[in-house]
Amino acid sequence: MSQKHQEDVLHGKSGFFKRFENYLGEFVYGGIDGCVTTFAVVAGSVGAGLESAVIIILGFANLLADGFAMSVGAYLSTKSEKDNYQKHKQVEYWEVDNLPDMEREEIVEIYQAKGFEGELLEKVVDVITSNKEVWVNTMMKEELEMQDEERSPFWIGAVTYISFLSIGIIPLLIYVLDYISPLGYNLFLIASILTALGFIVIGWLKTYVNQTSVIKGIFETLALGGIAAVVAYFVGDFLERLIMG
Amino acid sequence: MSQKHQEDVLHGKSGFFKRFENYLGEFVYGGIDGCVTTFAVVAGSVGAGLESAVIIILGFANLLADGFAMSVGAYLSTKSEKDNYQKHKQVEYWEVDNLPDMEREEIVEIYQAKGFEGELLEKVVDVITSNKEVWVNTMMKEELEMQDEERSPFWIGAVTYISFLSIGIIPLLIYVLDYISPLGYNLFLIASILTALGFIVIGWLKTYVNQTSVIKGIFETLALGGIAAVVAYFVGDFLERLIMG
Repeated sequence: MSQKHQEDVLHGKSGFFKRFENYLGEFVYGGIDGCVTTFAVVAGSVGAGLESAVIIILGFANLLADGFAMSVGAYLSTKSEKDNYQKHKQVEYWEVDNLPDMEREEIVEIYQAKGFEGELLEKVVDVITSNKEVWVNTMMKEELEMQDEERSPFWIGAVTYISFLSIGIIPLLIYVLDYISPLGYNLFLIASILTALGFIVIGWLKTYVNQTSVIKGIFETLALGGIAAVVAYFVGDFLERLIMG
Repeated sequence: MSQKHQEDVLHGKSGFFKRFENYLGEFVYGGIDGCVTTFAVVAGSVGAGLESAVIIILGFANLLADGFAMSVGAYLSTKSEKDNYQKHKQVEYWEVDNLPDMEREEIVEIYQAKGFEGELLEKVVDVITSNKEVWVNTMMKEELEMQDEERSPFWIGAVTYISFLSIGIIPLLIYVLDYISPLGYNLFLIASILTALGFIVIGWLKTYVNQTSVIKGIFETLALGGIAAVVAYFVGDFLERLIMG
């Protein structure tokens, strides 16, 4: 196999996930957030002894409003991150044009730190500073330690939205089914099981983002969602006694 | 003023915000998320004509559960990001030890791209590859284009939690006051105004993170929260008619 492919394998990237993982992080964290926020409404409502109608109404209100806010927020923050990078890059270009001695000295310091000295150091700095783009890119990486966000803000927002809604709707599904034709089961139990399965899938996907062990990824995500649900349930229960009891 | 300080000013960083901005991003996005999620409960409940008690119960259930999930999620994702960086770094160390020719060739390609050639290129590669740490760090920055997350996962989680709760409680405050001693005002109007003020402050702080114009930052954040609230209100209203009407 090619060196590059060998590299990727060494870095734990299979072909498929190498392509997909660019946006997998957004899918995972969007899904966790969506599932937690709707399940919090479900658990809080059940804890407070509120009727299923309230769960459906506020569950969907929260799902759609939060999903919108989170995905647009992700779009805006990625966009401003890219803009910010470009802005700093423009500043470096300005500095290279207007404070060349200062900027050259910074390249000298950067390469001294790498172990260059004497005549070789001067020659290296000459080459770096002979190409404005190389010069500026060196400042971006070595001085400001910034990397450009190469991904599309639009797709980051879109993937977050799709994930937030598709995973976030899981806790509500059984209540919608029960509303259409009453099932008579313990809805909260079923919703909890379905939500737990959702967290397991997301936790498993997360291991491809974080490249951690499957057990760790699933356990972390399940514990996170579980504790959040317990918090919502008991806050709902406590406040219901306090206010309505 | 010193060159470094001059630099910071050119990059739009004042002394105070240069220190604070390390965690300001978490404060801003945690605050927006907290405010949106609780205001979605408020707007959805009002749209559905539910009583104030439901707003207080589910508002706090959602605030505490979501706040927990979001801050722990931020902690975990930052931690795994750092772990992932270290893991890739270990792989590079392994490659430098076990595939030195391949790794040296990559340094050659990296410095060719910078415009080095011939004898000077060889000398530069000799210096870079003579120090394993410099060699690996060059691979991390230039080949993998990864930067280490130097901030503390704990503080990222803590700041997110504090921000989520302190900003996210704003939409609920007036309902709590009204519960303690009935005010008789239009609670939703007051909650909306207070929430809008919260979004304005957060939007203003956001301009220090993104280094965008104050108007843009405030408008974006206000529009984001406003549209999310409108969505929640009409989804609540629509489902209330559908289910209860």
